[in-house]
Amino acid sequence: MSIKGLIDDLVSANHILFKEGVVDGFGHVSTRDERSPERFLLARSIAPATVRARDVMEFGMDGEPLSPRGRKPYLERYIHSEIYRARPDVISVVHSHSPALIPFGITGTSLKPVFHMSGFLGAAPPIFEIREAGGPATDMLIRDRKLGAALARSLGPASFALMRGHGAVAVGGTLKQAVYRAIYAEVNARLQSEAMRLGTVNYLNDQEAANAARTIDGVIERPWELWKKRVEE
Amino acid sequence: MSIKGLIDDLVSANHILFKEGVVDGFGHVSTRDERSPERFLLARSIAPATVRARDVMEFGMDGEPLSPRGRKPYLERYIHSEIYRARPDVISVVHSHSPALIPFGITGTSLKPVFHMSGFLGAAPPIFEIREAGGPATDMLIRDRKLGAALARSLGPASFALMRGHGAVAVGGTLKQAVYRAIYAEVNARLQSEAMRLGTVNYLNDQEAANAARTIDGVIERPWELWKKRVEE
Amino acid sequence: MSIKGLIDDLVSANHILFKEGVVDGFGHVSTRDERSPERFLLARSIAPATVRARDVMEFGMDGEPLSPRGRKPYLERYIHSEIYRARPDVISVVHSHSPALIPFGITGTSLKPVFHMSGFLGAAPPIFEIREAGGPATDMLIRDRKLGAALARSLGPASFALMRGHGAVAVGGTLKQAVYRAIYAEVNARLQSEAMRLGTVNYLNDQEAANAARTIDGVIERPWELWKKRVEE
Amino acid sequence: MSIKGLIDDLVSANHILFKEGVVDGFGHVSTRDERSPERFLLARSIAPATVRARDVMEFGMDGEPLSPRGRKPYLERYIHSEIYRARPDVISVVHSHSPALIPFGITGTSLKPVFHMSGFLGAAPPIFEIREAGGPATDMLIRDRKLGAALARSLGPASFALMRGHGAVAVGGTLKQAVYRAIYAEVNARLQSEAMRLGTVNYLNDQEAANAARTIDGVIERPWELWKKRVEE
Repeated sequence: MSIKGLIDDLVSANHILFKEGVVDGFGHVSTRDERSPERFLLARSIAPATVRARDVMEFGMDGEPLSPRGRKPYLERYIHSEIYRARPDVISVVHSHSPALIPFGITGTSLKPVFHMSGFLGAAPPIFEIREAGGPATDMLIRDRKLGAALARSLGPASFALMRGHGAVAVGGTLKQAVYRAIYAEVNARLQSEAMRLGTVNYLNDQEAANAARTIDGVIERPWELWKKRVEE
Repeated sequence: MSIKGLIDDLVSANHILFKEGVVDGFGHVSTRDERSPERFLLARSIAPATVRARDVMEFGMDGEPLSPRGRKPYLERYIHSEIYRARPDVISVVHSHSPALIPFGITGTSLKPVFHMSGFLGAAPPIFEIREAGGPATDMLIRDRKLGAALARSLGPASFALMRGHGAVAVGGTLKQAVYRAIYAEVNARLQSEAMRLGTVNYLNDQEAANAARTIDGVIERPWELWKKRVEE
Repeated sequence: MSIKGLIDDLVSANHILFKEGVVDGFGHVSTRDERSPERFLLARSIAPATVRARDVMEFGMDGEPLSPRGRKPYLERYIHSEIYRARPDVISVVHSHSPALIPFGITGTSLKPVFHMSGFLGAAPPIFEIREAGGPATDMLIRDRKLGAALARSLGPASFALMRGHGAVAVGGTLKQAVYRAIYAEVNARLQSEAMRLGTVNYLNDQEAANAARTIDGVIERPWELWKKRVEE
Repeated sequence: MSIKGLIDDLVSANHILFKEGVVDGFGHVSTRDERSPERFLLARSIAPATVRARDVMEFGMDGEPLSPRGRKPYLERYIHSEIYRARPDVISVVHSHSPALIPFGITGTSLKPVFHMSGFLGAAPPIFEIREAGGPATDMLIRDRKLGAALARSLGPASFALMRGHGAVAVGGTLKQAVYRAIYAEVNARLQSEAMRLGTVNYLNDQEAANAARTIDGVIERPWELWKKRVEE
């Protein structure tokens, strides 16, 4: 894909995540630069719904912008840089404060796949506790490389992690996959909360989850086309 | 009705099911071809909200497209073909992952009619468990005729069935009736969940449900006109 | 007000009740004809959101249209006629299947005013049980004068009544007041359900409810102007 | 900022609070007049979504309009005047009946910060009980200076207070901060209710809350730009 195509997709991803209720005025999404895997693309510090191509900046693996030209970066860009450092397989990272996920993180409730659309959650995804790496008096933000590295360690090889009192990260092998996971983790959380109030939940087993995730990966263009159409209207 | 009229209604049904929150990027709706009851019409593998007349394909009772011309069919078209095979009275089938229904399927909670709009649910609709026919390691999808036939057996003579960890199917004697049932099954699930948290629920009895369903069938054009107007705006 | 002004307001009321989530494809709102209190105005049998001035018909106190000219009336017009017969103070009636209210009716949970906007609910409004007047095998509808009269008796002098397994009626001394009550009864139900899950609820006492209702009656034009603006956009 | 700029921002704030679901036909937002801190600006008695620049009036510290010219003020303007009198640090006040907050006030449930976006809530904000100052038979409204003063005392040095059976007030050192707090108090309430149903909640501790609030204050323009864009569309 051309760099222009990549940036256009990243702009769409920003708008989609807002439209689908995953981010509000806060949250961000990045993608590695295909031409140079030691670099990644991320907007300057503005609301995702308002991002345009000219707001996209390039960052190095230290989380610092290569050519800021007066544009202010997100305080939490180290979420992205440290996950890219730890996970060569990750091509895209979404960070959000997605509403249905917050209650899981702050009660320590395990998120688990309730249906085939969220098989990527696998066994329960990790919950990152900032107090372990940052102590009891942080401002909750991943505002430096050390905290970013701690978050990446907590994520481990998973596709998704909750962050206590803060939000979540979803990662993917493509931008579309990371966006898909961010959206359906939120959907899964809503359904799981509701189901836990109705009775004992029969989750997907590990094989069902893995198989369903593989199948869905093959049709991921389908919702992407819909999401893109909705933000272009 | 002309074939053009039938296809137009099927396109509207796709858009309506999205607008009313029954399908998202996934889910599908089909109708028998009136000219030839051994054939049915179903869109190619795209999001329902984006379906246009030229995306509608014709299928035989084996679930295979008659004239694909490069258009990719839905993996789960066997939901439709096998229900049509088993149920000559069924003219239309809706498959969805309707959000309020998932918690019922995965907790084994019986869906029951809470008001006159959902009398068609009758006594508790069946819950399809794919593990019984497909074993413990499927990808949850109805991806062949055998699984489709098992789902049709589970549905039996009912208007509606839940699918554990997946979604639901609604069937009807007309396209409009199947769409109506898919929409109001979702509404019923929302209301029933809420009611079960408030206290002991006084459901419609069997006679009330059957009588209400008959009355509503007589005025089904009323919501259809509204739903159509909303998607045309 | 001129008859044209009255009909315009009734059309607006239909659209407002849809926009604010009180009615869907079903439900209806009527108003007495100011020129002739033994007559009332109500749309023909179509979805409220689609009502235009030419759909409004005039009815007598027997619930029958005076000049149908081929237009089909609502099956449940007797809700309106029998309440007008029993309650000379009532100038407008709204009937809905408002979603947050259904769970109250079917669990026998008393609706009570949680805040000053819903003081009109007073002490717990009645719940109409159709089985008492119609037996165990109705289709749940108020489809004749006898059932309408039973509903009116159940309503008594109240501003609002729940109907088990069906919906609710709100009445008012003006069209705007009935619409206001239908909208805020629904809001109250949502808030009360949520509050009952959080803890023991401290409701408005009888004096607070009565005083708040009187105050709100004085500023009822304020939300009406907003609601009207929203449906005209 | 020019007086025109201030009024424009106040008009935007009115529209934003409606769009973001904090106010409906009722509720209001004011700001001190920077040129004269003993005066404040507040719309005449209309729905926030419909406020235009010419609807903004100026009030003195007695809560009375300086130049009404036939424009009717809100009955509850004393909420604003008495808080401004008691709190020289407060530059803006939002009063709402924000839906997720009502259940907290009427059950006496403490609102607490569940994530970094709502650190401004600090330790549990106060709940104002009008019966203490106004007795058991008010109409629930802050309709005079005495009740306004009682509310201001209940608020004390906090950023936010619940009002039992009525709503809430959010205050800020700028208009944007007060709007931010009104919006995220509502978000916090939704998340906290949901979390309390899932399990035992791990809230931000006092240091986390204070630090997060300070950080967020530095990026408050980000959501404001989004909210403004949304109401201008």
